[in-house]
Amino acid sequence: MKIGILGYGNLGRGVECAVKENPDTELVAVFTRRDPSTVKIQTPNVPVVNVANVKDWVGKIDVMILCGGSATDLPTQTPEYAAMFNVIDSFDTHAKIPEHFAAVDKDAKASGHVAIISVGWDPGLFSLARVYANAILPDGNDYTFWGRGVSQGHSDAIRRVKGVKNAKQYTVPIDSALDAVRSGQNPELTTRQKHLRECYVVLEDGADAAEVEQAIKTMPNYFADYDTVVNFISEEELLTKHAGLAHGGFVIRSGKTGQSKEHNHIIEFNLKLDSNPEFTTAVLVAYARAAYRLNKEGNNGCKTVFDIAPAYLSAQSGEELRAHLL
Amino acid sequence: MKIGILGYGNLGRGVECAVKENPDTELVAVFTRRDPSTVKIQTPNVPVVNVANVKDWVGKIDVMILCGGSATDLPTQTPEYAAMFNVIDSFDTHAKIPEHFAAVDKDAKASGHVAIISVGWDPGLFSLARVYANAILPDGNDYTFWGRGVSQGHSDAIRRVKGVKNAKQYTVPIDSALDAVRSGQNPELTTRQKHLRECYVVLEDGADAAEVEQAIKTMPNYFADYDTVVNFISEEELLTKHAGLAHGGFVIRSGKTGQSKEHNHIIEFNLKLDSNPEFTTAVLVAYARAAYRLNKEGNNGCKTVFDIAPAYLSAQSGEELRAHLL
Repeated sequence: MKIGILGYGNLGRGVECAVKENPDTELVAVFTRRDPSTVKIQTPNVPVVNVANVKDWVGKIDVMILCGGSATDLPTQTPEYAAMFNVIDSFDTHAKIPEHFAAVDKDAKASGHVAIISVGWDPGLFSLARVYANAILPDGNDYTFWGRGVSQGHSDAIRRVKGVKNAKQYTVPIDSALDAVRSGQNPELTTRQKHLRECYVVLEDGADAAEVEQAIKTMPNYFADYDTVVNFISEEELLTKHAGLAHGGFVIRSGKTGQSKEHNHIIEFNLKLDSNPEFTTAVLVAYARAAYRLNKEGNNGCKTVFDIAPAYLSAQSGEELRAHLL
Repeated sequence: MKIGILGYGNLGRGVECAVKENPDTELVAVFTRRDPSTVKIQTPNVPVVNVANVKDWVGKIDVMILCGGSATDLPTQTPEYAAMFNVIDSFDTHAKIPEHFAAVDKDAKASGHVAIISVGWDPGLFSLARVYANAILPDGNDYTFWGRGVSQGHSDAIRRVKGVKNAKQYTVPIDSALDAVRSGQNPELTTRQKHLRECYVVLEDGADAAEVEQAIKTMPNYFADYDTVVNFISEEELLTKHAGLAHGGFVIRSGKTGQSKEHNHIIEFNLKLDSNPEFTTAVLVAYARAAYRLNKEGNNGCKTVFDIAPAYLSAQSGEELRAHLL
């Protein structure tokens, strides 16, 4: 299976690692909007190509993995590249998924390619956990907790505060809330009860720490509804101690069965990830295998993780899976 | 979707509950080997029918859910009924799954029906967790822990010991082993390090407790490789305090990514179930929906949970799933 990478940032580098782990996959080219001579990749003898020349690669790539961002790249890239290749993306703007699906489906169907969108862990594996658990326990409650991990959106919001030079924000799930959910109490939890927001902030010279802290803690949508802890640190400490890309989270469904609903059940899926981009791209490459196989079987159009039978993700045959993993 | 139940024990009663939770399903008949007049079911106006007359129901049942045991019932029942109906079973003899698959596939294909075998939580949801996690993290280790819950096989083994009147055996996962796995240490764990065996035993009059305890603890395969705790109790206490059907377990994959394998990731799926049979049958009914839909689309033959796209399990449409659960 010949893999192309479009965009060589954290995700692109992650795909490159994941391809090495999967002997049935081979990286054939990396595409970039930058001057290719400035982009150094890890894999020997694989060309870095300017996106302007991507059309030359039609027919030479089985699956193109799109490693751009959801805000501005993927809404245009995924339909555009689905017209030329089977594609995978990690589009994660939950509210705009239906619109993105429709746009990608149109171009993928017209060109006869398979496109799988919103692949990763949330959306992605967390979505799968929700669908399986909801289908099995129709009478129940869903709980999703994120973290401990850096939220890019919240970090950016802090950086926009006057007097802030740099910042990182960790989303932290609150143990007592997790325990209450796992005990089967089916609690109703407020935003404040589920997550804590932990901020590490570098001040501009002369900035007033108390004012900055107040501005962060009262910021609507991002912080006002949460308990927020603000720690002021040096830029050196921020860059050395808070450069990690760890993340994770928990999806739990708690639901009832029985003639009198006397039995409660907890279905939990959780992730603890040292590197969010490397794990996300490991998921992308597994779904690339599915896109390739589905297309070879004559399928086309836009799909999500909900539409893909698990066996398509595995390098093992049906016989091997039944014998060893069932 | 018209559901038939074959066999009215713990599983049959569980299916009956699950059908009530799913408005798109309807119980149309319960089939039994017993005299139907002696079988009282919970659902009003649904006939209980002797299995001898099951052929009269061909064409009137969309999916027959087979609620027999894996040892002697399902190996013959599933192929036999797949010749007449779409069927679901919970065949759980892991080592014999390939053979069972082949037998069922032949009859299901010949008759044009869909049969989904080995549905439940292990095999079933635990198998899914293993396949997804292995496809995503090819370089890693799988860990499965069961319990805390009663093992029927181990309880039966104790009852065969001379001097034992009755017994229940709980399989208990050991917290320190779970913690070691979750920490990303990728430990090699012995049988003894993973599970404790906790036994509640009622002695026959005049039996020697020390001899019975020794016989249990040294029993090969069942107990010799484990730390085993034997508690002697009265029959009354056994029947009142150890009649529950709670169970559960944990499937964890710990795997590495990165250019130098410097990042570890933990994927965990766990269940905490108040009623093993009611949860198992909730899974069976979700897969009955999938069997029905797949057959309506023209599919036939034997399938496992690996072959079924998650969307087929849900009563919601693709649009609804993408909008609300992705």
